[in-house]
Amino acid sequence: MKVPYGGDYNPEQWPEQVWKQDYELFDAARIDTVTLGVFTWAQTQPAPDMYDFTTLDRIVERAAAEGRQICLATGTGALPPWLAKAHPEVNRTDFEGRRHRYGQRHNACPSSPVFRRLSAEMARRVAARYAGNPAVIAWHVGNEYGGACYCDLCAAAFRGWLRARYSTVERLNAAWNTTFWSHTFTDWDEIEPPSALTEHWRGPDHTAFQGITLDYLRFMSDAMLTNFRDEKRAIRESDPHTPVTTNFMGMYRPIDYHRWAPHLDFASWDNYPPDDTSQARMALTHDLMRGLKDGQPFWLMEQTPSYTASRDVNPLKRPGLMRLWSWQAVAHGADAVLFFQMRASRGASEKYHGAVIGHSGRSDTRVFREVAELGAELERVGGVTLGARTPARVALLFDWDSWWALEISDGPSRLVRYQQVVLTYHRALWDAGADVDVVPVTADLSRYDVVIAPALHMVKGDLAERLEQVASRGGSVVTTFLSGRVDEDDNAFLADVPGPLGPLMGIRIDEWDARGPEFVNPVCFDNGPIVDARLLLELVIPQGADVVGTYGEDFYAGTAAVTRNVFGAGYGWYVGAGLDQTGVCWVVRQVLDWHNLSGPYPDVPDLETAVRVTRDGTHLLFLLNHNPEPVEVVARAGGLDLLTGARVHIGQVIRLDARGVMVLRQ
Amino acid sequence: MKVPYGGDYNPEQWPEQVWKQDYELFDAARIDTVTLGVFTWAQTQPAPDMYDFTTLDRIVERAAAEGRQICLATGTGALPPWLAKAHPEVNRTDFEGRRHRYGQRHNACPSSPVFRRLSAEMARRVAARYAGNPAVIAWHVGNEYGGACYCDLCAAAFRGWLRARYSTVERLNAAWNTTFWSHTFTDWDEIEPPSALTEHWRGPDHTAFQGITLDYLRFMSDAMLTNFRDEKRAIRESDPHTPVTTNFMGMYRPIDYHRWAPHLDFASWDNYPPDDTSQARMALTHDLMRGLKDGQPFWLMEQTPSYTASRDVNPLKRPGLMRLWSWQAVAHGADAVLFFQMRASRGASEKYHGAVIGHSGRSDTRVFREVAELGAELERVGGVTLGARTPARVALLFDWDSWWALEISDGPSRLVRYQQVVLTYHRALWDAGADVDVVPVTADLSRYDVVIAPALHMVKGDLAERLEQVASRGGSVVTTFLSGRVDEDDNAFLADVPGPLGPLMGIRIDEWDARGPEFVNPVCFDNGPIVDARLLLELVIPQGADVVGTYGEDFYAGTAAVTRNVFGAGYGWYVGAGLDQTGVCWVVRQVLDWHNLSGPYPDVPDLETAVRVTRDGTHLLFLLNHNPEPVEVVARAGGLDLLTGARVHIGQVIRLDARGVMVLRQ
Amino acid sequence: MKVPYGGDYNPEQWPEQVWKQDYELFDAARIDTVTLGVFTWAQTQPAPDMYDFTTLDRIVERAAAEGRQICLATGTGALPPWLAKAHPEVNRTDFEGRRHRYGQRHNACPSSPVFRRLSAEMARRVAARYAGNPAVIAWHVGNEYGGACYCDLCAAAFRGWLRARYSTVERLNAAWNTTFWSHTFTDWDEIEPPSALTEHWRGPDHTAFQGITLDYLRFMSDAMLTNFRDEKRAIRESDPHTPVTTNFMGMYRPIDYHRWAPHLDFASWDNYPPDDTSQARMALTHDLMRGLKDGQPFWLMEQTPSYTASRDVNPLKRPGLMRLWSWQAVAHGADAVLFFQMRASRGASEKYHGAVIGHSGRSDTRVFREVAELGAELERVGGVTLGARTPARVALLFDWDSWWALEISDGPSRLVRYQQVVLTYHRALWDAGADVDVVPVTADLSRYDVVIAPALHMVKGDLAERLEQVASRGGSVVTTFLSGRVDEDDNAFLADVPGPLGPLMGIRIDEWDARGPEFVNPVCFDNGPIVDARLLLELVIPQGADVVGTYGEDFYAGTAAVTRNVFGAGYGWYVGAGLDQTGVCWVVRQVLDWHNLSGPYPDVPDLETAVRVTRDGTHLLFLLNHNPEPVEVVARAGGLDLLTGARVHIGQVIRLDARGVMVLRQ
Repeated sequence: MKVPYGGDYNPEQWPEQVWKQDYELFDAARIDTVTLGVFTWAQTQPAPDMYDFTTLDRIVERAAAEGRQICLATGTGALPPWLAKAHPEVNRTDFEGRRHRYGQRHNACPSSPVFRRLSAEMARRVAARYAGNPAVIAWHVGNEYGGACYCDLCAAAFRGWLRARYSTVERLNAAWNTTFWSHTFTDWDEIEPPSALTEHWRGPDHTAFQGITLDYLRFMSDAMLTNFRDEKRAIRESDPHTPVTTNFMGMYRPIDYHRWAPHLDFASWDNYPPDDTSQARMALTHDLMRGLKDGQPFWLMEQTPSYTASRDVNPLKRPGLMRLWSWQAVAHGADAVLFFQMRASRGASEKYHGAVIGHSGRSDTRVFREVAELGAELERVGGVTLGARTPARVALLFDWDSWWALEISDGPSRLVRYQQVVLTYHRALWDAGADVDVVPVTADLSRYDVVIAPALHMVKGDLAERLEQVASRGGSVVTTFLSGRVDEDDNAFLADVPGPLGPLMGIRIDEWDARGPEFVNPVCFDNGPIVDARLLLELVIPQGADVVGTYGEDFYAGTAAVTRNVFGAGYGWYVGAGLDQTGVCWVVRQVLDWHNLSGPYPDVPDLETAVRVTRDGTHLLFLLNHNPEPVEVVARAGGLDLLTGARVHIGQVIRLDARGVMVLRQ
Repeated sequence: MKVPYGGDYNPEQWPEQVWKQDYELFDAARIDTVTLGVFTWAQTQPAPDMYDFTTLDRIVERAAAEGRQICLATGTGALPPWLAKAHPEVNRTDFEGRRHRYGQRHNACPSSPVFRRLSAEMARRVAARYAGNPAVIAWHVGNEYGGACYCDLCAAAFRGWLRARYSTVERLNAAWNTTFWSHTFTDWDEIEPPSALTEHWRGPDHTAFQGITLDYLRFMSDAMLTNFRDEKRAIRESDPHTPVTTNFMGMYRPIDYHRWAPHLDFASWDNYPPDDTSQARMALTHDLMRGLKDGQPFWLMEQTPSYTASRDVNPLKRPGLMRLWSWQAVAHGADAVLFFQMRASRGASEKYHGAVIGHSGRSDTRVFREVAELGAELERVGGVTLGARTPARVALLFDWDSWWALEISDGPSRLVRYQQVVLTYHRALWDAGADVDVVPVTADLSRYDVVIAPALHMVKGDLAERLEQVASRGGSVVTTFLSGRVDEDDNAFLADVPGPLGPLMGIRIDEWDARGPEFVNPVCFDNGPIVDARLLLELVIPQGADVVGTYGEDFYAGTAAVTRNVFGAGYGWYVGAGLDQTGVCWVVRQVLDWHNLSGPYPDVPDLETAVRVTRDGTHLLFLLNHNPEPVEVVARAGGLDLLTGARVHIGQVIRLDARGVMVLRQ
Repeated sequence: MKVPYGGDYNPEQWPEQVWKQDYELFDAARIDTVTLGVFTWAQTQPAPDMYDFTTLDRIVERAAAEGRQICLATGTGALPPWLAKAHPEVNRTDFEGRRHRYGQRHNACPSSPVFRRLSAEMARRVAARYAGNPAVIAWHVGNEYGGACYCDLCAAAFRGWLRARYSTVERLNAAWNTTFWSHTFTDWDEIEPPSALTEHWRGPDHTAFQGITLDYLRFMSDAMLTNFRDEKRAIRESDPHTPVTTNFMGMYRPIDYHRWAPHLDFASWDNYPPDDTSQARMALTHDLMRGLKDGQPFWLMEQTPSYTASRDVNPLKRPGLMRLWSWQAVAHGADAVLFFQMRASRGASEKYHGAVIGHSGRSDTRVFREVAELGAELERVGGVTLGARTPARVALLFDWDSWWALEISDGPSRLVRYQQVVLTYHRALWDAGADVDVVPVTADLSRYDVVIAPALHMVKGDLAERLEQVASRGGSVVTTFLSGRVDEDDNAFLADVPGPLGPLMGIRIDEWDARGPEFVNPVCFDNGPIVDARLLLELVIPQGADVVGTYGEDFYAGTAAVTRNVFGAGYGWYVGAGLDQTGVCWVVRQVLDWHNLSGPYPDVPDLETAVRVTRDGTHLLFLLNHNPEPVEVVARAGGLDLLTGARVHIGQVIRLDARGVMVLRQ
């Protein structure tokens, strides 16, 4: 038992003589796991009534014979051309109302009966054929579900989804506030998907009716989930136990992964950070993925060993980065480390995407060498991290509904981006070295001392009460500007802002100012720094809360910007202004310090720490030096460095190389 | 009799118990006028053969019972969903050739017979039902007419419009210069609306044939005017006298308001300036709206008390701004001050648009307080301003045809924008405190001493002669680069530039240079400043005119840039270069000073003055301090400040608070 | 015999009384050649079964009677409206999948049988009618072929083209690497044109399958070539000898002019440089055009005497520039100097395009005067330059396939633009004053000492061997980053980078770094400068080559960036980094100096020199001073200045005026 190591492997693109070379190189790099068959539909079903598993059989047999573990895909990540031709309705209709023809991937209409029938049938046959194979350790359904369709089949399915949600047109009209702009629907058939041809202008975020757009986002996420469930159900006909997953894409707006998560046996995701300085962003995303299934470990399903190809500019991963980021994934809960891809494609759009084996087939490249070194290292460390959990006392709420509602809103500001606000608050926690669970708003909050809810635009169900309970029992709740504005239907609360969060926060807000990024209003903290606030500036009126920070300029100089309210045995913190990172860090540090929840090195920049607790209770402390220089710190705990075998004693100076890693078993 | 005060009110969005609270708050704020029913079509006609005025009856009755004046809308501002479903041809086809489905507002094809029949029928029924109600003081047809349609119905209507204009295809071919690029039409049916599918690329301003695009703009403006006239005619069947209007949008390019104005009983418009420093721009727009009907007062039909929602960034109106801008409207001829909206919508795209009453229903907010204070102030001032006229001796020509022709032109420069040029010249007049009429090119010019015609690209009819008459009798005419280039069909004059303006200006132009904004050529004035010129630089060759300013650099250094020609007893000024604001102010000041037409405080920045003369000849002098600091000046005239009741004597120092207002009855 | 001088003339736009004035002005300006009838289709075929040459007859007769030479167009540059209406399938379907209706030009689907039949028929009739006229010196087919169509007719034609190329679907699948993303085609009918509806996103350069997009580019270029050939064949039925051309657009990406060139009797092109500082760019384009037909002189078919109209900003050509650029064209091989246009159109999109005769019809303008002066000068010089050849020993390879493949590639960098790389290397040659042939990769390289192949992404056929032969016999071959990456099908070479160029270059590349333009890595040359490298940085591993330049920073500091490999009696130079202009100039100068191929004044900035050798072996040395100041240099050769008649002796100081020209017959 050890961390599975390997990745996407497409030998069907190559003659069999190449396969031999592949496995020799896999041996050299300690590759023990391969993901097979992600895009095989055209091969396994070359015609409507013909299924042909000859090649896939050989690929699976060879992998098993070579002693590899297999993550076996159903192969439905893209349609075969004949299917798109024979049934044009399986192709998507885009936001502009254009029926597509065959091309790309992510190309199936999720509501198409033909697609649903044939994709499930493919999953059924793949599972039936390979279910008994002991090398198969997981099923991989579809691939990176995403995008959207706006065809008439989806319109009909949307109407069905709405009928199930609202029962009557009258309730739908109430939810969407259709009295506005003469939009009262009198029949379900009058409802069209919200698109460039109907409610939208200037793209998917500009809608005349937030309600219909929000529901279409929910519907589309559900429709694709149905596709996943179709295939999973078909797999389960032959194989009741082997876990089933699909690869997520981290903070991917179109799909509400929280609604999907219960249907996956484990979560997995593809990590393609935008640049070389994304360490905090990746940490957040790992925490989000781990939070999908209540802290259960996930798989790092894809990462590139060197470069991506899909960006305008595709920089090379610096030496050591791939190893460092792999260990970061493990530190945050990954129980597998996999690459896309094992061998670089010759042609098409991923020809220049990095691979373990390049076009020349060499093993004496720097990239291959680093892959092999990590392989050896993972082998040495073995299975100690598998199944270990993160002992977080801090929760950060992440909510797709709030994301959508905030960003499709007309006013107050298109410049406030949900992800950016969340990143800023998570970054403050990351800087402080706190272990954090990123969880849905429906999560059990009773295990947390601190709950941070940035830009919690929508407040649903009993969330306000549950947040009050956190504070009541001595915890701290932090929320920000643009929180507590709308209910589940995106209708404004008919109450003072921040709606149901008002009592906990002890404030009210009558006015807010939205400004361009060039406009800065300083916020002054009591006994704290003066920081910059931008974009959204709420004029906070305390209704019992203490003022922590005030605006420094403009007609609202002296008005509260940040407050703290005593609530039960704990606190409600409200940050009404778009503080810069320094300001957010200061607020978050006040909260963490009160609960004594910072990590061991909160003041060492870019030295990340993370803890996992194994099933037997052993603490593993990961130290990850994201700096391009070495770092020396004093050990706060003793233990054994699993990577080097060296012993570390409390108080000893430990040194991490540039981009170095230490895994201390305490 | 006083200035109507109130605005758009949509109680149909709320349960009746809310209405009671509304009227209590209206009382508190002296709201005496409500605009009702702007988007009621779906409610008043819930099905093809069903009309239901139950709710509107209650709304109108309640308003009347509460003693409010009503501006009653026909409710056709947006289609009901059933109509869009039952008759897909009522939906617009966009510039990209896409037939839309139901959504948004501004969604009706203006040429659709079904839409025309049913919208007129709705107006007919609304008028028939409420015409006798003495609370109804105005009819509000449609809402913010705008946009465009490119469907086959519009194509057919366009052909009919062309046939009426040109009679024969030969004359159309001549007008559009179709010999170019093999475009000779042989039958009306060959003509398609100019769109992304036909003559255009890179959007609506890039056309291969200016003639067809210009005519389509004219046609579409006329087509929507027909929609307005359909409804007005239907209203007049029941109500021969109550004035009928529709709300305009200021400098809105797609609609030629000058062609509409004769059909409105009074003009009204919605004032949503782009930012907090739009005082001069708003003044221009008020002057334009007042000029629509020969100086007759207009209504400020909409403004926000606090923020808009439709912009990327929606800043809060600073304290005092709403009052200042309301008085600015009155100063320029507004006889009503109305808001959008009385109570904020719960949901959809205007949920965050500011309102007199917010989601919490409070009256103790700053915004409500300012609304109430203005209400009290307007009540105090009473009806003295009603019907008063602006005694302008300066005219600024504004011409939609020139706007269109200039901006759809290929060459010389896409960077020269009509509105920007006009704003610069108007700003110079505004800075000098001159009262200005902004009038169409067909206006009677005999009453003006100064006529300014910026970027008068197209010269139609007898305009050149009428401008010559202004100069002949001692007046001054100012025009600029890119004037006098084309005739009514957008064909170049076969003459020296500036075409028919040449004799008046006493110049000719053989060459011009277009440059990016980074390129500056200084222009040196005799006994004047050296200023920057940009974008468009014409090499002016005097043919009798005196040189006033010359270029300082490049191969045309020393060439004339600005000239003044003695013509009769007056002058023709030509500004051949894109001067900066300082340069334009200098030229305009020369002209105004000659005629002694500057206001009392031309050298106090952002202290606006405006005069209205009441029916009995009383002069009202408005002083508007747009500065965020107080201003002190010496009174040039005595009188009574209608806002405070204080007496002002000539020579006395008067002080205006930051954003303060004074209305001196002299 | 002299250089034909004149240009596009459209008297059909004017009444005949204007023609008289035209010819008087032509006389004044020594205009001896007119291009007639480029857009006459609507006139010559006003209805399906009606041909009417009345007007064209008069135009041609008048021109002949006035003693002008005629370049006679077939008139098919744009469809007549009736044809677009009667046969909607002749209109193009755009990249977005939208069937267009009538408008613009470039509006015919190249695969439409109706268009093909009628355009050929028009050419047939025009040729039959005017073939005997001795004034006709050339046929001008179509006009600026370009754009693309994606309709079903093109889809069918594309499938036919593919069938001819690949014979079997299996071979097509192999070429396009369709095993990737489940794209295996099982029938030709499944293949759709690659567009926004199929393989593309974010426009024409973003494709999921490079293979299909590349083949569609090739197909579309071929399809339009077929249109040209249809017309040429029809002309040849009546006129076996008069040369046939069509006007090219220089570096125009959509059309592979190398594939077209064999079918033209001579090349011609329209020179509209983007700005006033395009002298090097124009030189490259002239060299490219001359290289189309193996060094044979070409025609400068169009240039503006003053301004364009199609740009956002259309600056005026400074005094002297039109003359200078005309002589530059001749210096690089032009045997005609023609304008667009003789008289400015009154209306439509070229109304503001400059012309020899403006709207006022004046001859006393600066522009007309310069045209007339050049006319007189060309008359004085006579025919000496006609047919002369450029004695280049340096070849620069230009390859549309590499251009396409590089720019449609996903990864490594969208910021590396083929044209920009080529311009940088050509600029270095231009700065040094070397005479250069810009030739296709299939050209005979045996006559060159130096071959420069920037960004030679695709290496086809025996090119690598032919480049090796250049080096073997003592020549120098220079190539750059992103060369030698893919084969003719855009599949990566399964070998070390740079693939088949590896042996010649003596290097290999395992890694490369792509970075944004703000990222600079200095490259240090031995005994040379330190220069900036950007965008693409390959880590070059010498395999026998000498290191010439190394990176200065980052983890690959000290790694080779530029190398030189001894190969046979010559060298292979590899430039692995995106060097700035200084760096490229330094490398190129090393190479030129070795072969002693720089021009006489390599160190005088913007003093261009070019040589043409007449049929009798006389050397003509052109000196072109692109500086806005005079330049003095010492004569390196003696001769007669053909423009002034002055004698120049070796060693004498010669002076060129600002923008001055000298043509020395040695």
